[in-house]
Parts: sequence; structure tokens; C-alpha cells
Amino acid sequence: MDLIKKLSQFSAATICEALGNTGYLPSEIKPITQAMKVCGPAYTVKTMPRDNVLLHRAYAYAKPGDVLVVNCSGFYEAGYWGDLMSIGAKTKGINGLVIDGCVRDADDIEAMNFPVFSRGLCIRGTSNHGDGTLNEPVIIGDVLINPGDIIVGDRDGVVVVPFYRIEETIEKAIAREEKEERTRAELRKGRPSIEVYGWDEKFGY
Amino acid sequence: MDLIKKLSQFSAATICEALGNTGYLPSEIKPITQAMKVCGPAYTVKTMPRDNVLLHRAYAYAKPGDVLVVNCSGFYEAGYWGDLMSIGAKTKGINGLVIDGCVRDADDIEAMNFPVFSRGLCIRGTSNHGDGTLNEPVIIGDVLINPGDIIVGDRDGVVVVPFYRIEETIEKAIAREEKEERTRAELRKGRPSIEVYGWDEKFGY
Amino acid sequence: MDLIKKLSQFSAATICEALGNTGYLPSEIKPITQAMKVCGPAYTVKTMPRDNVLLHRAYAYAKPGDVLVVNCSGFYEAGYWGDLMSIGAKTKGINGLVIDGCVRDADDIEAMNFPVFSRGLCIRGTSNHGDGTLNEPVIIGDVLINPGDIIVGDRDGVVVVPFYRIEETIEKAIAREEKEERTRAELRKGRPSIEVYGWDEKFGY
Amino acid sequence: MDLIKKLSQFSAATICEALGNTGYLPSEIKPITQAMKVCGPAYTVKTMPRDNVLLHRAYAYAKPGDVLVVNCSGFYEAGYWGDLMSIGAKTKGINGLVIDGCVRDADDIEAMNFPVFSRGLCIRGTSNHGDGTLNEPVIIGDVLINPGDIIVGDRDGVVVVPFYRIEETIEKAIAREEKEERTRAELRKGRPSIEVYGWDEKFGY
Amino acid sequence: MDLIKKLSQFSAATICEALGNTGYLPSEIKPITQAMKVCGPAYTVKTMPRDNVLLHRAYAYAKPGDVLVVNCSGFYEAGYWGDLMSIGAKTKGINGLVIDGCVRDADDIEAMNFPVFSRGLCIRGTSNHGDGTLNEPVIIGDVLINPGDIIVGDRDGVVVVPFYRIEETIEKAIAREEKEERTRAELRKGRPSIEVYGWDEKFGY
Amino acid sequence: MDLIKKLSQFSAATICEALGNTGYLPSEIKPITQAMKVCGPAYTVKTMPRDNVLLHRAYAYAKPGDVLVVNCSGFYEAGYWGDLMSIGAKTKGINGLVIDGCVRDADDIEAMNFPVFSRGLCIRGTSNHGDGTLNEPVIIGDVLINPGDIIVGDRDGVVVVPFYRIEETIEKAIAREEKEERTRAELRKGRPSIEVYGWDEKFGY
Repeated sequence: MDLIKKLSQFSAATICEALGNTGYLPSEIKPITQAMKVCGPAYTVKTMPRDNVLLHRAYAYAKPGDVLVVNCSGFYEAGYWGDLMSIGAKTKGINGLVIDGCVRDADDIEAMNFPVFSRGLCIRGTSNHGDGTLNEPVIIGDVLINPGDIIVGDRDGVVVVPFYRIEETIEKAIAREEKEERTRAELRKGRPSIEVYGWDEKFGY
Repeated sequence: MDLIKKLSQFSAATICEALGNTGYLPSEIKPITQAMKVCGPAYTVKTMPRDNVLLHRAYAYAKPGDVLVVNCSGFYEAGYWGDLMSIGAKTKGINGLVIDGCVRDADDIEAMNFPVFSRGLCIRGTSNHGDGTLNEPVIIGDVLINPGDIIVGDRDGVVVVPFYRIEETIEKAIAREEKEERTRAELRKGRPSIEVYGWDEKFGY
Repeated sequence: MDLIKKLSQFSAATICEALGNTGYLPSEIKPITQAMKVCGPAYTVKTMPRDNVLLHRAYAYAKPGDVLVVNCSGFYEAGYWGDLMSIGAKTKGINGLVIDGCVRDADDIEAMNFPVFSRGLCIRGTSNHGDGTLNEPVIIGDVLINPGDIIVGDRDGVVVVPFYRIEETIEKAIAREEKEERTRAELRKGRPSIEVYGWDEKFGY
Repeated sequence: MDLIKKLSQFSAATICEALGNTGYLPSEIKPITQAMKVCGPAYTVKTMPRDNVLLHRAYAYAKPGDVLVVNCSGFYEAGYWGDLMSIGAKTKGINGLVIDGCVRDADDIEAMNFPVFSRGLCIRGTSNHGDGTLNEPVIIGDVLINPGDIIVGDRDGVVVVPFYRIEETIEKAIAREEKEERTRAELRKGRPSIEVYGWDEKFGY
Repeated sequence: MDLIKKLSQFSAATICEALGNTGYLPSEIKPITQAMKVCGPAYTVKTMPRDNVLLHRAYAYAKPGDVLVVNCSGFYEAGYWGDLMSIGAKTKGINGLVIDGCVRDADDIEAMNFPVFSRGLCIRGTSNHGDGTLNEPVIIGDVLINPGDIIVGDRDGVVVVPFYRIEETIEKAIAREEKEERTRAELRKGRPSIEVYGWDEKFGY
Repeated sequence: MDLIKKLSQFSAATICEALGNTGYLPSEIKPITQAMKVCGPAYTVKTMPRDNVLLHRAYAYAKPGDVLVVNCSGFYEAGYWGDLMSIGAKTKGINGLVIDGCVRDADDIEAMNFPVFSRGLCIRGTSNHGDGTLNEPVIIGDVLINPGDIIVGDRDGVVVVPFYRIEETIEKAIAREEKEERTRAELRKGRPSIEVYGWDEKFGY
């Protein structure tokens, strides 16, 4: 989808600002290797602590291009996702995984370049009970994520764009980047930001 | 030892599964650089907070091939180990260090390629009182580690194989890898794991 | 300044020892990329949670060569600093940033090689209220930092040298390195440290 | 309102179960003294870290019987609420406060018996910038709280009942209590719960 | 058992010292009301996160006088135990519960005076999957607890006495108390402890 | 001392405000029983992790009326202080203890009404190495405490008044209380604080 492609050209930080400084997931959720980026509509999952049946189901049901977004009920210390699931998801065309918990098989996942954003790496295995929810709204940190909201992640972190605000976000991100580009030029001339922003009078220079 | 060499060919995650999902150390314990791997029998140490005399003694007493495994009494914020001790231990033939605390001199340790798994890096120095235990059972996280148990660590984390379960673990790890290889082939054909595992009926597809 | 250049040749860990094992900042404060190093006099800042006006003012007022040192009132989860401020600070000749909180735009900051030591990366934006203090003593972790104290940071962590102890610190660091070099030679011959230090009698060998 | 009175007769734990094990706020949010209970419709507040202007505004705008429910942006270490605000709120007829942060003046608040549920007690004062939101949905822990949802708190913790589920929740709570009363009678006869629940066959007795 | 009764007359802190400063559980595990005490042989349980079937089974299988000791796999945020289970366990003659997780129904449990030591109170409910272990060794914090080890808990915390060290522990506890009584008499005369212990010369007075 | 007596009549929160919202210790440091209060000049101690020799020395050297203020190097999990030391300190005329770590023997300490403010209760014993500092400046949380600064603690928390600011603090505390008393009268008439403070226009009413 064209709008998603446009969104993917901005950094997560820029989009967060374009959203009026909302949509940021907890900063502990980071790509397993620093160059990974992700962008796509959320397929949401809520698993129970240490259980990952719903993650197997999620990538099977999600649409190509989707990003799996997973709440693990506050229990991070398990390897909810690994190389096999990455193969399965990548084969299916899934765009990536954002999980508020840990994963394992980092070398293999990195080698196949499947974008995974997690709390870290953990070898502890999971159970197969299967409780939780699929494709219903989930909460991670301070953000309510609805299925279809757009997820954008990079080295700095992950942001969630509500579906109905995609176009507005793109416009504001463009405006912000243009303004920042002008600011950069001033900064490079040696004018500090408090001068560029006109803050020198307000805050004393 | 041949069995240890065999164990070293499996990932920590695979061995954890082969052990029935036990033996995992806390996920905060990671290699100081991502490519480091370690495998060998545990020489166990319990130090008191911020003291490292026992670490000096440990590498002097341990056998070539041993891996030092250290409980720091829950006080992580000190550099219990550094470049000099790494030189000493490497010269002695020690295979590596797994410590539930911090270390320092990461650049030097990385340069000499001595495998160190720790909670992180910390410049704070240590004391020289010398209390604690050597080569007695220690607990790290949820795992009781006996001297001689086999330690396997990689980027994903560290696992402990009880000495009397080495052969069983190797067999199960081989079986698991074979099964996973078959699963990989199915996944690459586009069959998701819930189908491969026959979970589609159990959990609804 | 010549003394600062001398200090910059020692590792943060060595300087910490030369200071009698004091001056260490919390180990969670690390360079955003592992090769970054920083050395220079502190320009101190205390911001209120999530506010960064004082950081804009700080780099505008600080002298070339200074290192900004920032206490964020214990609220880490915001991107207090980013690429624009890095351009402004670098243009001004600022030597680097040490902040007890998070930053963003890591790729850009790394690309321009401006040394930033932080708690991590966070995309959440900041407010512009402007309260806090500039160039007054601040506390980070266990250390009181006065304006003009020397900050030395590398991969292992960050240490603060009180202004009046610079020369003493350099002397002790030199002595320590010389002693360590002699110890290294002994270690490489296979004599463990408890023997080199004469601890074998004291602690039993 | 009659339904609210009915809800107030159940414990927070019973209501949580009646809601299908949802609606629980983080367990760190507790009454400042163990006998305090609270029940009423939520008047929601989101403050910025360490700022409490919106709390002053909130009790002025809320309706008698309302419970103020406050997200403090993840910064707990401030006394967002105290004795004066408690007097003001109590005079206004506010039913209580549930805040994901700290408060102060516990003795005075306890003396006037105004129910306050918080993360703890903190003497650090607040700022008066006034940013945040009033009477819009807020997230605390895993729960999205809409204005008008019913808050029930006691010594065990705090639960949120979505407005549209009040009647269903009361019915299920009554059914649960009746079932538990029957179970209690069996337990007192010496039949353990695995027998009463028929789990002895399923799980082995 | 006579030895257990003798042990119950010492404080947890005294017993910890008699054990050579070992056996202490994490200090976050405390009685739900400050006057509660517990003493008895451990019936050990390891549950999976948020599951409590094994707790129902445990009190049904344990012997009168036993104390249930529960590892919750590091997931504290659930109400693993409540009033019904307390009735069942008390009816069965169980002496109390020590759990490395949360419980609920504190008022009811306090009213029936069933000793419960926990991480805190939490209303979140549990699942009924039933995985884990019963009456096998468990680890809590730094302590390996074998079935039959003696648990002693009071307001200060909980200590574990290995079964084979009960008599030795009682003897050392008696000796310690006698010594402390003599010290108390000296202290009340105004002689500070460094004088009583003869530390004034060693540490400078 | 008369000024100290005057200070003791204000709450810790009021004094914190009178100091311009500074001087607050971390909120986790609380009286072991809620009614305890403490006020007096600081006798400062810095101990190493788990060591308490300096605490024995501190109460022996401090003057009657002093309050011991202790930094434990960030290692909280030990019982640094107990009933015997409380007897010794009370006999000596010491006014109380504020420690950034744990203590034990809470029942006995409460019974003798010796004010102790700590991170909690812990039965784990201590070592007797004796390193650290006595009566030199220490840092706890965000506060630098000099010997002789005045410590005021109550249920809400602990505040530190720099010695040279005592009189100013008393004056400002009196002024604040008078202003608050006038505000209370207005609040009781039903005028909310945003009206009393004139904030209704600034922030919208």
C-alpha cells in the first residue's frame, strides 16, 4: 500500500513527533540487530506468560505485509519466537515481529533478515496451551494498538500510527522534516537552536 | 573431552529444549561481544558483593578447559573481571567466564578472544577480602550448578547441562535438530507450523 | 589543554582505579556505539523529567571542548537529545554528551561521530518548559559532578575526575599501567595473579 | 447510582474474575491505609511527569461520586496529591483517587478518610505547567480506562469495570460468590478443592 | 515434632546467623500482616507463570504441619492463592504458605489467621493448566529448598533450615542468643559494640 | 538545639517545599513503622556492600541527638542494623537511623521506639571488613548530605536540610503553613484550588 511505503521513509522518532508525541512503545523494545527496520499494518496478539501457540497461529492467519505485534502479559523471560517461526512467517510474506518479550535464534533470524523487535534474547522455551487473543486491540506500554494500525520501527524504537491518522501523520512528518532541514542549515552556520527557535529571549541567552 | 565437543555443536536454545526446558541462566547474562561462544565444565565460584579475590584463585586452580561460573551475591555493579585476569586465565587454558555480574576492559578481552558472558560492563573496582566459596554448588537464577556440569553459551544465552545428563542431552538435541530440519522444509513450502504440528484442529485454523 | 589530553589516553577503568575507586557513573550509561570515546571538562545540566530546553541552552553556552553532563531527574524514558542538537553542539566544538537518560537519532549521531553516552535510545519527545539548572553541581549515581571536572568515557563506562585531582590522577594512572604491564608479563609466563600479587600465602594456594 | 452501590459490595478480586480476569491495575497501586475502599465512575487524567495542575482541575470539574484516575506518564517519584487537594476533593464530593504515582500527607489524608490508592508516599513536590489530558481515555498497566468506567478498589488492588459491562459483571459476581459459598462449605468438611472441582481425575490425586 | 517447635522459638534472623548466614529467602517475601509467623517442614511446589493448579494439589497432598513453599517461575503478578485455598489448607492442618509471587483475599486470610508470606497482593486471576512440579527441590532466590527442609518466617523475613542441619542450627541459635543477651547487658551499661566485641583496637576508636 | 526542635514540628513534605523542592531522599526509604519520626543532625556513613562495621563505629562516635545517615553502596539486601545496635545507639542518645539499605529485628526496634528509616527488612547478615567512610559527605539518591545537615523524617519520607539553610527553611515552612491554612479554609467553603490559586483563568475553568 502506497501510504505505508510513504510512512516507511520516515524515522520512528519523526513519526512519533508527527503524532503529537504519542504512539511510542517502551524503549526496551529494540531490533535484535541495529540495522533492522520494519513497517506494516499490525496483526495483534496477546499471549499468556510463556505461551506461544498464538504466535504460530498469528503468522498463519495474518496477511502478507502485516507486522505481528505481541503483548506477552508482562512475562518477558521466554524465547517466544525463533528461527522456525521466522522461516514460516517470512515464507508467508509477514513483514516482521514486534514483541513485548524475548526471542531466540538471533543469528539465524538475522541471517534471513526477518525484522524482529524484542525485549532481548532468551533461550527459555515456551508452553503450548493456546490461551490469549488474536487480532483484537492490545496494549503495550502506553499505547492501545488496534489491528490495522501501522507499525514503524527502527534502531531508535517503535511507533504505532492509528489507522485513521496515516495521511495526517505523513503530512506532518514531511512538514517536520522540511523544518528540520532548514534548522540544520542554520545550525551548521553556528547559530544554536535557542537562537533559531527564538528561545533566546524567552529563556535568557 | 569428546562429549563436550559434541555438546558445543548445538545452540544454547537447542540444549535447553533437550533438557526439557531447564538449565537456562537469566537472559541478562550475555556475551560481551555477540560472536563469542563458550563450552566446558563448570568451575564454580561464589563471591561476596564487589569482592574478586576468589576469581583470581579460581582460574589458578581450575583445569584447562574449565569455564568459570560465578555468583556475585546479587551485586552486579562492579568490574569483577578484566584484561589481566583474562590473560591469566587464557594462559592457563581456561575456556571462558560466565558471571552473574559485570566486567571491564571489554576491548582488550574481545581482542584476545577470551569468551566472557556477563550482566554488562562496569568500571567500578573491587575489594580483596576473599570470602566466598570455590568449587561448591552455586545458584544462578533458577539453576543449581554443580562443579563439572557443562556450560554452553552463545549469543542467545547460557545453559547448564547437569553432568549426569550429558549423553541424554546430546541424543535429544540431535533428535530435535533432525525434527526441526524436517519442519523447516515444510515451512519453506508454505505450510505454517500449526499445520505441520497438527495444531490446526486442536487450536482452530 | 595538555592535562586533558593526557587523561584521555587512559581507559575509564584505569582512571577509576587511579581515583581510589571513585568517580564511576552508573554502568547503564554507555556510548551509543561501542567505539565512541569522550574526554573533556564538564558543563553540567539538571533538567526536569522529559524537558530539554536546558540542553539547547547548554551547548549554546558551553565552551568548545566541554562535555555536557546531564541529570534528567530520574526520568529516563524520553529522547532528550537528537541529531539536530548534535549538529549544533558539534558545530560549536562541544566534545560530547553524557546523559542519565535516553536520546534518539542514533544513526545520524553515529554518522557524524559525535560522542553520546546515554541510558539508551528512546523516540518519545520532550517538552519545552525550561526549568532546571545550568553549570551548577549535579549528582549522577554516587558522584557529585562540579562544572569543570573532567569526564572520561569509553566502552566500559564513564568516570569523573575532580578538577583539583587531575594531576594526581594522571600520575597514579601511569603508575598503575606500568605495574599492570609488569603483571601482564608475569601472567603470560603462566604465573597466576595470586602468585604475582603474593596472595597465595594469604588466601591459600 | 444503584448499580454502583451493588458493585461496591464485591471485592476487587471477585469483580476481576467476573470480568473474565481482566481490568486489573498493576498490583503496586494500593490504598495508603489497608482499610480504604473506593467505588465510583472514573474521571480520567493524564499528567506529565511531576506536574499536577491537571489534578487540581480534575477534582474541580468532576462530578460528586466520581473517582479520579490518574496516569502520571510513568514517573512515580513525586507527591502528586496531598492533604489540601484531599480537602478540596472531599468537599466537592469526590469519592477517591487512584493514581499510578505517589502522594504525600498520608496522615492527614487517612485522618479525613479520603480513599487514596497510589504507588506509595513521596515528599518530592510538583511543577505547575498544566500539560496532559482530562476526561479522555487513559491507559494504566494493561487496562484502557474510559471516562465513566467504574473503579473498584480495596486492600487487594484496583479493578476497572467497563461502563457497558456493569450489569453483566454484577450478575457474574453474584454467581461466583454463590458458587464460592458452596465450595467453602465443602472445604470446611475437609474435601480439598481438587476434589470439589472434580480435578482429582484430570490432574491425578 | 519437638525439634520444629524448638526452631519456632527463634527469629528468622537468628536462625539465618546460626546457619552461617545462609538460607535467607528474598526480602520481598513478607507476611501479609506483620504479626504472622510460620514454622514447619517444606512441601515444595513449582508452578508455571500465572497457573495455580499445583497449589490446589499441594495442600491436598501435604501432611498436616507442612508449609507450602512455592516458586512461581519468576512471574509475581497474579493472585496465586486466596481465601478458599486458605480454608482448604487450614482445614487440612497445613501450617502456612510461603510463595515467591502474589496472593489475594488478604482480609479473609488475615481473619482466619492462616500464615501467608508473599511478594504482595494481586487481584489478577490464574489459569488451570497444571504444569510444574510437586515435592521436588525448588530454588527461591539464592536457596535450594528440599522437601522436608524447615521453613521459619516472621516479620523480618523467611529462612530455610536444611533438614540435616536442624539440631546444629538449634544449638547455634541458643548459643547466639546467650551471647547476645550478654552483649545487651553491656550495651545498656553504655559500652558500645566495638568495645564489647574488642573491635576498638582493630578498627580504631 | 532550639532550631532543630523547631524544624521537627514541620512535616518532611513541608520542609521539602520550604527548601524549594530539594533535599528529598528516595521514597523507598521509609520508617519501619508508620508512626516513627526522626529529627537531628546527620552523622554520615558510607559502608561497602553487606558490611556493617562502620555502623558499629558510627553510633559509638556520634554525639547524642545525632541521626546516623548511611549509604550502603547500592546493595540493599542485608540486615545492616538490628536490635543490639539499636540498644547501643539509644543508650548513647542517638536520635535515629536513616539507611539506604535494609535492617532486621523490626519488632524489637519498634518496641524500644528507636526511629529507623530503611529500604525494608532483611534477615541476611553482614560482614566485618570495615571499609568505607565516617562523617564525610555522602550521596543518597539526588542529595549530597554533609555531616551536620539536619535530617527530618516521617511517614511520608525523609528530607535533608543543609546546615546553613536551617533558619531560612523554618521561616519558609512557617509561611507555607500559614498560607496552606488560609487555603484550607477556602477549600472547605467549596472553592476548588484552581480558583483559590487564581489558576482558573490561566488553565481554563
